[in-house]
Amino acid sequence: MRLLVIGDIVGKPGRRAVKENLSGLIKEFKVDMTIANGENSAGGNGITREVGRELFALGIDVITMGNHVWNHKEIFNYIAQEKRIVRPANYPPGAPGLGVNVFMAQNGVRVAVMNISGRVFMPELDCPFRKADELLEGLAGEVRVKLLDFHAEATSEKVAMGWYLDGRVSAVCGTHTHVQTADERILPEGTAYITDIGMTGPRDSVIGVKKELVIEKFTTQLPRRFEVANTYYQLNAVVVEVDEATGRATDIRRIQNFE
Amino acid sequence: MRLLVIGDIVGKPGRRAVKENLSGLIKEFKVDMTIANGENSAGGNGITREVGRELFALGIDVITMGNHVWNHKEIFNYIAQEKRIVRPANYPPGAPGLGVNVFMAQNGVRVAVMNISGRVFMPELDCPFRKADELLEGLAGEVRVKLLDFHAEATSEKVAMGWYLDGRVSAVCGTHTHVQTADERILPEGTAYITDIGMTGPRDSVIGVKKELVIEKFTTQLPRRFEVANTYYQLNAVVVEVDEATGRATDIRRIQNFE
Amino acid sequence: MRLLVIGDIVGKPGRRAVKENLSGLIKEFKVDMTIANGENSAGGNGITREVGRELFALGIDVITMGNHVWNHKEIFNYIAQEKRIVRPANYPPGAPGLGVNVFMAQNGVRVAVMNISGRVFMPELDCPFRKADELLEGLAGEVRVKLLDFHAEATSEKVAMGWYLDGRVSAVCGTHTHVQTADERILPEGTAYITDIGMTGPRDSVIGVKKELVIEKFTTQLPRRFEVANTYYQLNAVVVEVDEATGRATDIRRIQNFE
Amino acid sequence: MRLLVIGDIVGKPGRRAVKENLSGLIKEFKVDMTIANGENSAGGNGITREVGRELFALGIDVITMGNHVWNHKEIFNYIAQEKRIVRPANYPPGAPGLGVNVFMAQNGVRVAVMNISGRVFMPELDCPFRKADELLEGLAGEVRVKLLDFHAEATSEKVAMGWYLDGRVSAVCGTHTHVQTADERILPEGTAYITDIGMTGPRDSVIGVKKELVIEKFTTQLPRRFEVANTYYQLNAVVVEVDEATGRATDIRRIQNFE
Ligand SMILES: [Fe+2]
Ligand SMILES: [Fe+2]
Ligand SMILES: [Fe+2]
Ligand SMILES: [Fe+2]
Ligand SMILES: [Fe+2]
Ligand SMILES: [Fe+2]
Ligand SMILES: [Fe+2]
Ligand SMILES: [Fe+2]
Repeated sequence: MRLLVIGDIVGKPGRRAVKENLSGLIKEFKVDMTIANGENSAGGNGITREVGRELFALGIDVITMGNHVWNHKEIFNYIAQEKRIVRPANYPPGAPGLGVNVFMAQNGVRVAVMNISGRVFMPELDCPFRKADELLEGLAGEVRVKLLDFHAEATSEKVAMGWYLDGRVSAVCGTHTHVQTADERILPEGTAYITDIGMTGPRDSVIGVKKELVIEKFTTQLPRRFEVANTYYQLNAVVVEVDEATGRATDIRRIQNFE
Repeated sequence: MRLLVIGDIVGKPGRRAVKENLSGLIKEFKVDMTIANGENSAGGNGITREVGRELFALGIDVITMGNHVWNHKEIFNYIAQEKRIVRPANYPPGAPGLGVNVFMAQNGVRVAVMNISGRVFMPELDCPFRKADELLEGLAGEVRVKLLDFHAEATSEKVAMGWYLDGRVSAVCGTHTHVQTADERILPEGTAYITDIGMTGPRDSVIGVKKELVIEKFTTQLPRRFEVANTYYQLNAVVVEVDEATGRATDIRRIQNFE
Repeated sequence: MRLLVIGDIVGKPGRRAVKENLSGLIKEFKVDMTIANGENSAGGNGITREVGRELFALGIDVITMGNHVWNHKEIFNYIAQEKRIVRPANYPPGAPGLGVNVFMAQNGVRVAVMNISGRVFMPELDCPFRKADELLEGLAGEVRVKLLDFHAEATSEKVAMGWYLDGRVSAVCGTHTHVQTADERILPEGTAYITDIGMTGPRDSVIGVKKELVIEKFTTQLPRRFEVANTYYQLNAVVVEVDEATGRATDIRRIQNFE
Repeated sequence: MRLLVIGDIVGKPGRRAVKENLSGLIKEFKVDMTIANGENSAGGNGITREVGRELFALGIDVITMGNHVWNHKEIFNYIAQEKRIVRPANYPPGAPGLGVNVFMAQNGVRVAVMNISGRVFMPELDCPFRKADELLEGLAGEVRVKLLDFHAEATSEKVAMGWYLDGRVSAVCGTHTHVQTADERILPEGTAYITDIGMTGPRDSVIGVKKELVIEKFTTQLPRRFEVANTYYQLNAVVVEVDEATGRATDIRRIQNFE
């Protein structure tokens, strides 16, 4: 079976990229389930009920999140109801929403989608490695196909997570840096791995933001209100092929579509 | 003309990768000058006189560095004499060595090689953007072909530097994360850009280090002495094609060779 | 002569503390000039024209700032006009406002007030040590009595600055942590030093903020809108005695007034 | 009853300070138990068996630690045997040593000593607030007098912990910054609090280290091997008075002794 995993959708250009590309990709790659990181989908940071509905209506099956999950206030109610959104599991106990959930793919196979945040150069959450163990124990026997969106900054932490989970999950797909990496591979025990899927949003930008604003911020160190760049888009994703009988990945392929 | 730029060479496996691949790459791509990041070339961190000589003898023309530049004590004398090593230019005034130097390529064209370190999640050095301006002013008129190894962690800072220098240098090649990115492109004003060239070193590792040690470090938070992994290698590089009459890049191509 | 230096004024409780204590302190200690850190004076972060006027009207002669200097938009115009506000000097060139200025004290002596920000665990500004050298060169011969508000987080950086400037300025007074330290002393070459003057604001709070909100933030890692606590106040300050003939400090005394 | 709590002992000057002052302090303040932070006691960082023995022989009853706990290799064996050393409790499960232990004071009263590390600007350990809850649950009913050495950098995290535990422990004493704060107080529900006890070590130094080396490090950003300064000492401590019937603190008093 095939999982399509889309990197951080940023604002309107990102949603337009999904709109114009998703059905084609699903057909072309015979995709059974689409997972997308939506932490920047509403105005560049966070998600709203309206944007969430839009993304699900476009054909996304599961939305994962990241450090921007709580940016819009309405997320607190929304995520409590919408079980197709998965947020970093390593927030302290009591946080609204789910860190893992199991979904039925188009082909009838059950797929566990997990979301965990890194801690290096990131907020002080619970240990991502122990949290991964805990989530997997919770799933024991229930599902064979398991995907982790590991939302993290440092390559060392992400690569280490790939090795840590090799053979225990079908795929570890990194998000957060908004730049696609070229290190996709199947690890020896059958886990598909990529350090970062990249970003689905405005291409001529600084990771989604108007480039002039980011340059000004860096050069003046004065506050700048960041805005999503209004340029033609890029879509960054991976297609992971998994043997649903074993949960082992057999292929991972990077996708880059441009407007 | 063609510049071959090799990502962070890590320890013996990295040097073996250079030894077994460099002459082939130079021939295949008609390379006029080879630049390699050597900040991890000696035992995983830093460089020594012996390792430097080895790399130059293998055919590398210029070695750039990064945050590990000062790891071996002998670098202080070595870098004062060896002008083919370029270290981050934004260390405070008085640091040994050069942050930019001009070299004659095989085809007789002069090429300026610059090295700058980022500041986000990195040591507190001088502003990399103003330093870039300053280096370029110092070169004014002297050379047309100019390459920057921007050694930085955060994608935002790296992408911003690409746009900041677009049209003012031939190439901005990122290093430091040890993972190759898939965002190579020619920016609109003629600068070749990639967020990270990646690593030339042991492949089944965590960015060059034995994976078991890094996983232990993350899961126990106890100190672990890191060792370079002793596995088969990967070589990560880019070939940048530059019009030497204008200094504008016309092509950038990613290279990944495996043992 | 005597300089009164007041630690970060936080919101209304901080301003009330100034209102109810300043004239008494000036009389009691025969103060010739009052300097106060105002980076949190308006609503807990930043300063406005209205709050600035209020503080000057209460008898403060000079307001220093810190990392929160730019929080209110109007500061950009205000600081361009109001030369009695001094902001961290190590922002990149071109930032509005002054990083040092010279003022006439009540006794007719000219006093240079400098403000510099640390870089450890703080925004990426220019080197505070070289900036201090530069400011002092700019003042050469002009004034004898010189005070630095070093707005920094790490004790190592602050203590190092004290030693670095010992004998070159009359006083190095730390701010930013909002907790008064008990290490005030006259360094061997005549510089009065304290790592942090502390906070002038609501006492039963977490460095000025409602304690419940900060505890929730730490325990849930969910966003919390911070509000200035509405409790009785504390005033934290130091009185520095300087020999105006030499610029050397002869005494430094901590002040803690409570409502 | 009275607890003497000594701030981070740094190297030989720190141990000399203990040697020359401890028995006098115990007599003067009628101390029933002495707790000292020893994370810098051996050569400036970490502790060894030899230094531990020396400190216990001088009359220290319990040694707490911090981020430097693992610096000397022998600590792993030593701490497994020596139950009078308490290290940050929020290391991942499986770390050697104890994060809390109960000791009999001279007056026969049982005292629980806890050590927790902060996470802001510090290593990525488990949540200090939840860990404090957990330690206290583990002690339920067993002991009334409870002291926490909260080894942390950020004042916000330390002050928040004080309020979080107010009424639940006898004292929250901060360590790690090596600068004594002047905010000691009894919180409303009976917990003695101070943000930082300060350092017991060489006075004319940068938090224990030769000041020239630290200044060089900051101004050159080149590596410097830090050495403990060899100057006359300071001893920084607090005496906490606790009502052993209720566990509530009735007084906290700062101590600063100089050579
Ligand atoms: Fe994102
Ligand atoms: Fe993110
Ligand atoms: Fe490197
Ligand atoms: Fe590096
Ligand atoms: Fe402040
Ligand atoms: Fe501040
Ligand atoms: Fe310490
Ligand atoms: Fe420490």
